[in-house]
Amino acid sequence: MKVTGKTITAGCIGRIVIFRDSKDQRVQMARSIGRLLKGFHGLSTLPELGVQLNHLPTCVSLRTASVRTKVALSLPFPPKPRDFSLPNSSWGPEMLGLYEHYNSLCEVETEGGEKREGPWQRLPSYNRSLKYATGGVYLSKIIQSKARLFTRNMRDPGAAFEYVLFVNEGEQRCVCIFQAGHLLEGPPGHVHGGAIATMIDTVTGTHASQLSEPVMTANLNINYRSPIPLGSTVLIESCVDKKEGRKTFISCKVTSTDGSKLHTDATALFLSIGVSHLLLRE
Amino acid sequence: MKVTGKTITAGCIGRIVIFRDSKDQRVQMARSIGRLLKGFHGLSTLPELGVQLNHLPTCVSLRTASVRTKVALSLPFPPKPRDFSLPNSSWGPEMLGLYEHYNSLCEVETEGGEKREGPWQRLPSYNRSLKYATGGVYLSKIIQSKARLFTRNMRDPGAAFEYVLFVNEGEQRCVCIFQAGHLLEGPPGHVHGGAIATMIDTVTGTHASQLSEPVMTANLNINYRSPIPLGSTVLIESCVDKKEGRKTFISCKVTSTDGSKLHTDATALFLSIGVSHLLLRE
Repeated sequence: MKVTGKTITAGCIGRIVIFRDSKDQRVQMARSIGRLLKGFHGLSTLPELGVQLNHLPTCVSLRTASVRTKVALSLPFPPKPRDFSLPNSSWGPEMLGLYEHYNSLCEVETEGGEKREGPWQRLPSYNRSLKYATGGVYLSKIIQSKARLFTRNMRDPGAAFEYVLFVNEGEQRCVCIFQAGHLLEGPPGHVHGGAIATMIDTVTGTHASQLSEPVMTANLNINYRSPIPLGSTVLIESCVDKKEGRKTFISCKVTSTDGSKLHTDATALFLSIGVSHLLLRE
Repeated sequence: MKVTGKTITAGCIGRIVIFRDSKDQRVQMARSIGRLLKGFHGLSTLPELGVQLNHLPTCVSLRTASVRTKVALSLPFPPKPRDFSLPNSSWGPEMLGLYEHYNSLCEVETEGGEKREGPWQRLPSYNRSLKYATGGVYLSKIIQSKARLFTRNMRDPGAAFEYVLFVNEGEQRCVCIFQAGHLLEGPPGHVHGGAIATMIDTVTGTHASQLSEPVMTANLNINYRSPIPLGSTVLIESCVDKKEGRKTFISCKVTSTDGSKLHTDATALFLSIGVSHLLLRE
């Protein structure tokens, strides 16, 4: 396969930059691809491509002045990743009702009948973190390729974490509707404290990263007030207390869906992190 | 089936107390069994047994003076529950080495060549919480029957939480060897903060419940110092700070296996709970 164009689009996950047809660069980039994908699946057809992968793509589309060629990589995931925050058959009436309520606030109609963005925004959610070429160098390729986001690692709908996040930038608020599946048990019939901590980390961390660069959790301080029955739906609401340099302070509470019962409250501290060291230099 | 003995052994999970052949008690207990198991599986053969189930057994063994009869219940799990804290093929050399180290301290040889209990004790670990007759009454039977302990809900060895706990009663210390599987990802290539919180809750909670009655988590305060690479093995050590009435205060740290790197430290507060209301009255 010969590549004569200058740019390459696609990868549903990542951005790909193609180089001019310099032999050295081509060989170098072919090696990068080989390093990235070796042990992941047999990719013997691609070594002639002179591309630089920042993220692991699921398909590659090559465009020259007149011709567009698409190469699907035989990865074990579908090319279009599943958005786990959309309704599925496991969602109960409470979860669905609240989803529809907040979803209806994501788009508003103006007086002229036009549709525009509303105060709330639904955040999509996938089961893979982005993979960086130079990230996780000490991890075996097998672990890298099989890694899945902790809260989205189950294929069986409703078995574990079912949740959807909505963010309101104007009010600096975030709301998560969370339905706790049967695989999250801690005390008999109730949700594990670690599963609740996981959702609090997820909601507050997502909220903090919406406001700035990517963040890392520095502290979680969680008070468990009342256990959450397994199978039930609860609301997790977070709001920003303050921002100081790299620090973002967030508070959070978990309540029954009508807000009458407080299950858990927490504070969280996040630190912004630079990500430039994770990216290949161009 | 007629039961003439006074005691009943077995059930791999629970203790069973048999009553004398009083008709009233027999009927009452048959109803209890029916309530416990209805919707769980068809158990039409047992209503004549006059037994009181505190926990859900997987098999029942009846012993009179001369005859022993075993009744296997057709539960969807193996009669002997799997102990998840024993080595499996996914354990790496670090995990195995540390397991063997602490396991060797569970039994010591006296000068006379006799073997006796050592200072450490390995704690077995199963994937089901005990089910109580009157617990979780608001849960659907489907959720109850499918419920699994959060940290042991994966069948695939090595995919998520691989861990084993050792407790030293004399020193009031607990050590957990934890190998983080590929399904626990948070930041790319690293363990999710919620998965770390889950292990801290598990270790400190198990430790607290070793010292007193069953406990519930009241507070977790966790400082994340350094991320844990996915696939790596770490040590989680907890020690009791103090006990005040129903409160147990525990501190905990997560380090590299040689103790040189501090990944996380935490404090935890647990409240003892009475469980008498969860048991049938005898």
